[in-house]
Amino acid sequence: MAYIVDMRSDTVTKPTEAMKHAMVNSALGDDVYGEDPTVNALESKLAAMLGKQSALFVPSGTMANLIAIMVHCNKRGSEAFVGNQSHIYKYEQGGAAHVAGVLLSTLANKPDGTFDLADLESRFRGTDVHEPISALVAVENTHNVCGGKALPLKFLDDLSAICKRHNLPIHMDGARLFNACEYLKEEPSRVVRDCDSVSVCFSKGLSAPVGSAVVGSYHFIDQARRMRKLLGGGMRQAGVLAAAAIVALDEVVPQLKLDHKRANIMAKVIEGLFLKTFTVDVEGQHSNIILVRIPEHSSVTAQKVVARLAQVCLAETQGDCKTPNDEGVILKAIYFNSKTVRFTMHREITDEDLWLAIMKITYVFKELDAAA
Amino acid sequence: MAYIVDMRSDTVTKPTEAMKHAMVNSALGDDVYGEDPTVNALESKLAAMLGKQSALFVPSGTMANLIAIMVHCNKRGSEAFVGNQSHIYKYEQGGAAHVAGVLLSTLANKPDGTFDLADLESRFRGTDVHEPISALVAVENTHNVCGGKALPLKFLDDLSAICKRHNLPIHMDGARLFNACEYLKEEPSRVVRDCDSVSVCFSKGLSAPVGSAVVGSYHFIDQARRMRKLLGGGMRQAGVLAAAAIVALDEVVPQLKLDHKRANIMAKVIEGLFLKTFTVDVEGQHSNIILVRIPEHSSVTAQKVVARLAQVCLAETQGDCKTPNDEGVILKAIYFNSKTVRFTMHREITDEDLWLAIMKITYVFKELDAAA
Amino acid sequence: MAYIVDMRSDTVTKPTEAMKHAMVNSALGDDVYGEDPTVNALESKLAAMLGKQSALFVPSGTMANLIAIMVHCNKRGSEAFVGNQSHIYKYEQGGAAHVAGVLLSTLANKPDGTFDLADLESRFRGTDVHEPISALVAVENTHNVCGGKALPLKFLDDLSAICKRHNLPIHMDGARLFNACEYLKEEPSRVVRDCDSVSVCFSKGLSAPVGSAVVGSYHFIDQARRMRKLLGGGMRQAGVLAAAAIVALDEVVPQLKLDHKRANIMAKVIEGLFLKTFTVDVEGQHSNIILVRIPEHSSVTAQKVVARLAQVCLAETQGDCKTPNDEGVILKAIYFNSKTVRFTMHREITDEDLWLAIMKITYVFKELDAAA
Amino acid sequence: MAYIVDMRSDTVTKPTEAMKHAMVNSALGDDVYGEDPTVNALESKLAAMLGKQSALFVPSGTMANLIAIMVHCNKRGSEAFVGNQSHIYKYEQGGAAHVAGVLLSTLANKPDGTFDLADLESRFRGTDVHEPISALVAVENTHNVCGGKALPLKFLDDLSAICKRHNLPIHMDGARLFNACEYLKEEPSRVVRDCDSVSVCFSKGLSAPVGSAVVGSYHFIDQARRMRKLLGGGMRQAGVLAAAAIVALDEVVPQLKLDHKRANIMAKVIEGLFLKTFTVDVEGQHSNIILVRIPEHSSVTAQKVVARLAQVCLAETQGDCKTPNDEGVILKAIYFNSKTVRFTMHREITDEDLWLAIMKITYVFKELDAAA
Repeated sequence: MAYIVDMRSDTVTKPTEAMKHAMVNSALGDDVYGEDPTVNALESKLAAMLGKQSALFVPSGTMANLIAIMVHCNKRGSEAFVGNQSHIYKYEQGGAAHVAGVLLSTLANKPDGTFDLADLESRFRGTDVHEPISALVAVENTHNVCGGKALPLKFLDDLSAICKRHNLPIHMDGARLFNACEYLKEEPSRVVRDCDSVSVCFSKGLSAPVGSAVVGSYHFIDQARRMRKLLGGGMRQAGVLAAAAIVALDEVVPQLKLDHKRANIMAKVIEGLFLKTFTVDVEGQHSNIILVRIPEHSSVTAQKVVARLAQVCLAETQGDCKTPNDEGVILKAIYFNSKTVRFTMHREITDEDLWLAIMKITYVFKELDAAA
Repeated sequence: MAYIVDMRSDTVTKPTEAMKHAMVNSALGDDVYGEDPTVNALESKLAAMLGKQSALFVPSGTMANLIAIMVHCNKRGSEAFVGNQSHIYKYEQGGAAHVAGVLLSTLANKPDGTFDLADLESRFRGTDVHEPISALVAVENTHNVCGGKALPLKFLDDLSAICKRHNLPIHMDGARLFNACEYLKEEPSRVVRDCDSVSVCFSKGLSAPVGSAVVGSYHFIDQARRMRKLLGGGMRQAGVLAAAAIVALDEVVPQLKLDHKRANIMAKVIEGLFLKTFTVDVEGQHSNIILVRIPEHSSVTAQKVVARLAQVCLAETQGDCKTPNDEGVILKAIYFNSKTVRFTMHREITDEDLWLAIMKITYVFKELDAAA
Repeated sequence: MAYIVDMRSDTVTKPTEAMKHAMVNSALGDDVYGEDPTVNALESKLAAMLGKQSALFVPSGTMANLIAIMVHCNKRGSEAFVGNQSHIYKYEQGGAAHVAGVLLSTLANKPDGTFDLADLESRFRGTDVHEPISALVAVENTHNVCGGKALPLKFLDDLSAICKRHNLPIHMDGARLFNACEYLKEEPSRVVRDCDSVSVCFSKGLSAPVGSAVVGSYHFIDQARRMRKLLGGGMRQAGVLAAAAIVALDEVVPQLKLDHKRANIMAKVIEGLFLKTFTVDVEGQHSNIILVRIPEHSSVTAQKVVARLAQVCLAETQGDCKTPNDEGVILKAIYFNSKTVRFTMHREITDEDLWLAIMKITYVFKELDAAA
Repeated sequence: MAYIVDMRSDTVTKPTEAMKHAMVNSALGDDVYGEDPTVNALESKLAAMLGKQSALFVPSGTMANLIAIMVHCNKRGSEAFVGNQSHIYKYEQGGAAHVAGVLLSTLANKPDGTFDLADLESRFRGTDVHEPISALVAVENTHNVCGGKALPLKFLDDLSAICKRHNLPIHMDGARLFNACEYLKEEPSRVVRDCDSVSVCFSKGLSAPVGSAVVGSYHFIDQARRMRKLLGGGMRQAGVLAAAAIVALDEVVPQLKLDHKRANIMAKVIEGLFLKTFTVDVEGQHSNIILVRIPEHSSVTAQKVVARLAQVCLAETQGDCKTPNDEGVILKAIYFNSKTVRFTMHREITDEDLWLAIMKITYVFKELDAAA
């Protein structure tokens, strides 16, 4: 049997023992009637951590974002502003348009996950009947496609000033909010201070098996609850999932710094190879996601890199091509596009896994760089 | 602490010990990548039981039905026919219209959960540009609001003949399909034989904590998988939920007959009271749902009955009003409307619970009947 | 060339000479900028006639109704109540659901176009998260499929009392509002007094070539104007159409009584034939639509009747089968369903046309009745 | 009374005498039944001009584009690519999202109205369940916000090659298609050769009072007809509008070159003023729209320019401030944004109007430039 070092995504994490214990030992009830004490506890706990009034447990981050858009964009012909590299725009199948009927207007994401605020402000619509109603601005923190960047507080504060002036709410897709807080060394309540709603995911770096939440005011959550039912996100004894999420907040959040540390090590190792074909932005290495860039003109593709990493055997990396791959270590990464490979650190990646991965990466990157 | 006999709904059931064991001991993976072996096992098992090609695990029955409607009604301006007492029409917040953009055309449900097939056929639309495109017929089995009735096979066969003639697919909301099979003494694959898609719920009488599934052809499930993602129903290590659902199919399904038996006993006891104010249809007592009807003209309301049942103490029912309610038994039921009280049997209702409930019901019904 | 007596619908009416004169001699402007004086004049005039604050000219009655639904049903998961024989439900392709995302809940229309108000009230939803938000009740006046019936004022007043109690707006599909007023001998402002919005059509019995309007409060029309733009109903020099509509209000409305009179004559003639196969409800003959009913069990179909009426020659009706059909009169009617033929009187049907039609109808009805 | 030179838009044009004659003398019928011969003639004529199978008359360009999007994007979760300066994205209230449920993905429009084709191709989505279904590319020709630019044929041909490779349809928003053809000196059928659908507007430079059309294959138009009904765009005796549109094609299209010539003159005059504050791109002056740009840093705003142009009197421009403004000429322009003034030539702008406008523009531009 192969031993797999799966760095594709932090979504692959499995529940911890403590989570499993909680899942089968927590009080349960029918959450559709609001009677699941564990779900209620999770919602209260998370709302408090984020300094908001209320929270709602939902099956996925996609639903959390969709619900937020549906609640904020409550007039016919509404428009929401999002980054052009945001998860909402790129990876949620256009649900904002198809399900919520909302025009997504994209702003060019900068490499740090922010966008130009003057550009944003210039694009707010007036009241002319030809134009949609600008109704929401959404940011992503940390920003996945930008390489796990934590948004600078100054950006959030400046954005808030603009949105207040125009009376527009802000939604934060905080699928990896706690990674951002870890990097910024700030409390979650500070980071989301000026956001009218926040989505948080328990099943990414936090290792819980299933679930996300939306957080906001009492009024927002009341409406969000209706939207959850409309979409079919109401679950019964959801406490089995919420129990794991509570453990995630208590036990896994404090460990996120280890993922960041390991990601930093990997980034520095790759930088230290001094290769033309593979570069990383060590300076911008904020959290648990490492993006390796390949020059546009290179003949090497990210797909090829990913395939080679999954195939090369350890013996081969040690110059011993004839030894059968009995170690059977498979390294999994993914590609965002043909010139970007993504590695992700998470609770299940140990120091040993990290070094196994680095051995393979070093070998394969050098091999492909030499051939290119 | 009060001891609660909760007969409001079979959705209140909590996971069994075997389910809990399975939840923390089953192999997991990221189901969004299709890699959760327990989810895959559940989907295969259910598809096989229903004689269909494929299945998809989703967070709720509402989402299962919504997805089926979205897949079948894939042309702009489509119409789906449903019963006017169906869950889809009454209790899914109009998601078929709001989320899926589908016109729900209602057929008058008869007391047995069927509807008039000649009426149905007369209402299929032509191709005129004024008219929507008739795209789907949905039935519910067992039929909740009609009192847990199993649809007669002859009705399903006749419906199928009509739909085949008009080239229309059939969706069965089989939230309580296994209750129907138990009553009919038929295999699930026979009952759903002519349905193009079926939704099944694991968190009602089957006692699993969370989850439903849609079942259909490979092609249908491929599209359903996209719809699930669009709605935010994609979950990660969903195997923790699927594990319980597998146990539900193996261990709880064979026990449903006990719920039916207890429901029958309760219905007969109520009938045997010979009261004017409270009647049950013992003949039509098919499964685990007991509907108690109050005459329209009566001054008694279902709300009052439910409130009184939850408040009366056992001592009081024994003519001993002064004894404090130290037994602390609370009986919960719900009302569908002001003249209908619903009791539901499920795995957590034991014979003892049944008799406690009957004592209270007998006392309260007689009391209210005498006062009316 | 054939001479056609077209009684299919009052939509076939062509503009009068006065309309044509107005169309090419009225002041025009760009109505998207609100600068078309003729459109503005029409909107003011109509609003005043109906006792409302404002009006909006739109391309069709379907759009007028759709806009009203979009404005009133402005919350996600909304529901509108309509008759099950209403134009909105039957002949607008389900746009309320597909375009506006609104659940249409149907009430059984009685033969007089009304529905049961107790039934309506019992179906208003509560605030439970499972249920849609009851947001609108729509009535149709006169009621097309019910045979051009004018709704009794008492029904409208009782409906209003209920809707006020539940804080629900009323929309009247008044495509043939002026026919209703003519029958009731009431001012339009009285008939629509308790309606929050009204749609009116100029291109049916009123003979204008194109156009309808929605009427309501300033606030309603502001939102309606946005919806019109969203749907693509904003027109430029729409004054060319509005000019004809103004003439329609001034010159054609007072003549509607002639259509009613002719329709009455036809109904009485058909009744006077004392046939088993063809019956009319002379008592319920309110306006310009005559419905001829054929018994369910009869072998005669409405399609056959319509085909025969279009084919029989006058000579044949005079017992002279060998004379070629040089008179070439074609009588057009339509069928609503296989047992209902509809004839419609309108401005272009003269007394002579009426008698030509009656000759044919008499002959064909007797012929088919004898054969049946 | 003031004499108004209205250069805000070519939508302000009123019908010609020939149009008026046609409107009241053309054969009419009920177009909802497909029986209006003038509408049918217009649709056939336009389809032939564009080398397509069929056409459909609709009330507005917005509806024409919306219908095309609805027909092409017929799968749930579809995406259409449009320019970020396109009318569809900027001025149609987000109807593609709200009404059609389609994600609009924007490409950065270059100054010539095109966009980067490599960028486009890189953004087509795969089949992953996270991603929408790329279903349409739309271009605008001439491109309004880019200053009436005709798209180069090479761009269209290259786009077509890419779209064929990816099996994606192309829609052309040809609201001003005939202006593009005039500039390119190409037949319409050549310009739209590789487009699967085209929208054309009759009420802009073509001077007809109301109406647009969508053009495409028989199959496309069949579906478009259903969408038109769904949106409420079906009109009855629409021949009164189609008659004017036919005249527009025959008589106004050949005169568009005069608008272009006059626009060129104005652009050259403005360039010849050699002002810092006001510049035009004479090279890129393709058609009837003149954009005057003001530097970002300038204190002059487009709003101020427009206001001053509407207010200055001719006497003042002649240095005679004391003469009352008895000439009463008002020049109307509009602004796209705070640094862009738009003038539009159209059939109603005569040579004399042009010179009146130039006198005012010269005076006001110099005045504001001197003050800046």
